[in-house]
Amino acid sequence: MRLVIVGGVAAGTKAASRARRLDPELEITVYQEEPEPSISECGLPYLLSGVVGTREELVARTPERFAKQDIEVLVRHRVEQLDAAGKRLSVRDLAAGEAFEDSYDRLVVATGARAVLPPIPGADLDGVFKLRFLTDSDEVRRYTQEHSPKRAVVVGGGYIGLEVAENLCRIGMEVSLIEGADRVALAYGPEVSERVEAELAKHNVKAYTGEKVEEFVGEGRIRGVRFGGTELETDLVIVGVGIKPCVDLAEEAGAEIGPTGAIRVDEHMKTSLPDVWAAGDCVETTNLVSGGPVWVPLGDTANQMGRVAGTNVASSVGEDTSEFPGVLGTGIFKVFDLGVGKTGLSEQEARDAGFETFSAGIEVYDRAAYYPGAEKVFLKLIANGSTGRLLGAESAGSGAAKLTDICATALWGKLSFPDLINIDLAYSPPYGPALSPVIQAATILSGAFERARQGVRASE
Amino acid sequence: MRLVIVGGVAAGTKAASRARRLDPELEITVYQEEPEPSISECGLPYLLSGVVGTREELVARTPERFAKQDIEVLVRHRVEQLDAAGKRLSVRDLAAGEAFEDSYDRLVVATGARAVLPPIPGADLDGVFKLRFLTDSDEVRRYTQEHSPKRAVVVGGGYIGLEVAENLCRIGMEVSLIEGADRVALAYGPEVSERVEAELAKHNVKAYTGEKVEEFVGEGRIRGVRFGGTELETDLVIVGVGIKPCVDLAEEAGAEIGPTGAIRVDEHMKTSLPDVWAAGDCVETTNLVSGGPVWVPLGDTANQMGRVAGTNVASSVGEDTSEFPGVLGTGIFKVFDLGVGKTGLSEQEARDAGFETFSAGIEVYDRAAYYPGAEKVFLKLIANGSTGRLLGAESAGSGAAKLTDICATALWGKLSFPDLINIDLAYSPPYGPALSPVIQAATILSGAFERARQGVRASE
Repeated sequence: MRLVIVGGVAAGTKAASRARRLDPELEITVYQEEPEPSISECGLPYLLSGVVGTREELVARTPERFAKQDIEVLVRHRVEQLDAAGKRLSVRDLAAGEAFEDSYDRLVVATGARAVLPPIPGADLDGVFKLRFLTDSDEVRRYTQEHSPKRAVVVGGGYIGLEVAENLCRIGMEVSLIEGADRVALAYGPEVSERVEAELAKHNVKAYTGEKVEEFVGEGRIRGVRFGGTELETDLVIVGVGIKPCVDLAEEAGAEIGPTGAIRVDEHMKTSLPDVWAAGDCVETTNLVSGGPVWVPLGDTANQMGRVAGTNVASSVGEDTSEFPGVLGTGIFKVFDLGVGKTGLSEQEARDAGFETFSAGIEVYDRAAYYPGAEKVFLKLIANGSTGRLLGAESAGSGAAKLTDICATALWGKLSFPDLINIDLAYSPPYGPALSPVIQAATILSGAFERARQGVRASE
Repeated sequence: MRLVIVGGVAAGTKAASRARRLDPELEITVYQEEPEPSISECGLPYLLSGVVGTREELVARTPERFAKQDIEVLVRHRVEQLDAAGKRLSVRDLAAGEAFEDSYDRLVVATGARAVLPPIPGADLDGVFKLRFLTDSDEVRRYTQEHSPKRAVVVGGGYIGLEVAENLCRIGMEVSLIEGADRVALAYGPEVSERVEAELAKHNVKAYTGEKVEEFVGEGRIRGVRFGGTELETDLVIVGVGIKPCVDLAEEAGAEIGPTGAIRVDEHMKTSLPDVWAAGDCVETTNLVSGGPVWVPLGDTANQMGRVAGTNVASSVGEDTSEFPGVLGTGIFKVFDLGVGKTGLSEQEARDAGFETFSAGIEVYDRAAYYPGAEKVFLKLIANGSTGRLLGAESAGSGAAKLTDICATALWGKLSFPDLINIDLAYSPPYGPALSPVIQAATILSGAFERARQGVRASE
């Protein structure tokens, strides 16, 4: 049986490896447009600054490594057309410039996502970059070596923009950040945005919020960015305003596209086309808190989806044994010394999803106050106002990663906030306050909840 | 209504504060034998080395602070007798040497636990200490200043012994550790013990395992420790071989004592005596994984129990509104640069409790391998071999605190290991590998589980 996988990083290669492990007899080919089949895209911002020293460190596995697993990986190959009824593919070898036909018994679409460059005049100037693939980072590096830029503008205040801003600062650039919304880190509540903006200010990154870029100015090469009636001089622009799923191949072949614009798959990662699965940044999934469809393009999720797809393509016909349940929307990023994490819904997202919400935000020490190095950490819990069920959590500060993961696990276990008051977490002075911030916030939530209920009773 | 609380740290004062918050009319008195009503006992090892600079930093609240909450705290007062039928107490003012009678409407027993000094000849020599209260630490400090000890022996390889060993090393002492069992950190599996022993060796702490101390040698002052036919010279001994619950007062009054030797309470923290609750290190509770009674004297648990008891003593008669569900046995400690955490049962404990077990141990990086500072962390998951339900987890290394808390939350939510394969945890290169060690270990467990089931099928 022949398995073809379109796209490498990260879902495609995971699916390939998993399928190989389960079925030594499968014939497996991976087509990948980019030159590296398996890289850690999340590490790209750190390559800008040299925090990650060489691009090779981000290459998890080469085609040669896959060959040892008896997986054929063909890089610089673009799959241009999919005939789902005939189970055939048109493939172009980009290096040779030649096209050829291939066929499959089962197919995994892992075409990923691409960075969006907004239609701003001057976006094609030299010195204006996006940062999605290793090749983008190669270009930035080449430009930087050639022109030694002193000033940089980052467009976009989401996590990629923030990570890029930090890393450009690290190599001594004077960095400005422009965000269209009225605050950065818009996926979070305003308490978190404030903290991120303070962290940027502390490191001399000038953040312009509520500003839309009107034009990238320059002759051939970038010289300035025009917005809000002013022009900010700059030698380098990195645009991180978002990415969108690459669905053309699947869509043109007739695969159903979901409301988020990504490929719709069932819990087995199967598309609406026969014998075609899809995984990674090109598919949508279910938000387990809201129950609605979401598109959350993240490396860890892509990995997990790839494993599920790989298991199922290696199963007997009609016996998809593995299921991907959906996501919580968990994520974390670092901006300078601030960890910023989230799971589930922000309070706004919860309200938009129709929930009556209740929340408690606290700022406490991340370890015993007397233990050296104690730093403040912010935690906000959001719960369903009628059932008490936890809907989301946000954290900013030292230890945000731990608090986010505790809350993600609580969401995964469908816990309600009263369950968190007596939860038995690990305590020792170097690792936390005597009562975890999660317990403290749940306790405050409980008090607010009781008072509100008493208020309801009193007014009845 | 008059509420009397016997014992301060940590359950007693928490119960007092909680009761006061719920009922401003209550008359509240706390009797406490030690001079400080509210201290962080877990910080004591760090006071030895100066990591915590002054004893005052460990005093969370003074009697004056409690007075502001209208809670009377009488330190250096020992409650010597309890007449549960008459609701009366005999109290001795230790400073004045006088005894007096008091009465209550409701009582909370929070008598805590005391360090065990084993019956070893010479245990009364000057320079042989335990470390349980701030007064113990004062004595060690006084001795240290007077005699400038160069060599120290720590007796006991549990978490207190290990924390003490680290802190004595920090002030330049040559430290040996003697443990009766054949490995240190006996509450953990052997994989963790090995790592702890390696960490001790790395910091030049000589660990003698499988050795019982036969005699503390010296004339008036400690000079050596005799064990296994040799005598180890030393200037200081700290014994940390365990603690036991202080139950005399409650037991003599007729309160039921559980199989662990601690006071038995129901889910409302109520003892078998009328209108007497108990909380903290003097009570036993339920291990939610094994379902059996356990005695787990820890500061965070004492705090949570105190809150439940405080809520219930402030409730109307017969309306105990708050419940303490039990514990998982979660704990963590630091020894030098190694974090060591655990939740639920170790594999041995699980087998002893009658479970058929399945486990997977992995050692992986605590963040993206290419991100600076990446260090190895060990994680072991233990699951029920027939149901897949998670029974416990152990971790050692950087990030052990986070992994332990994720697994504790998973246990709290009664998750099974397959639930952990697709769990949506937070990923970013500075904070973890693309797939959390929890996900990786659960995935390995899954493979082992499937292979075992196939083995069972094949042999059927």
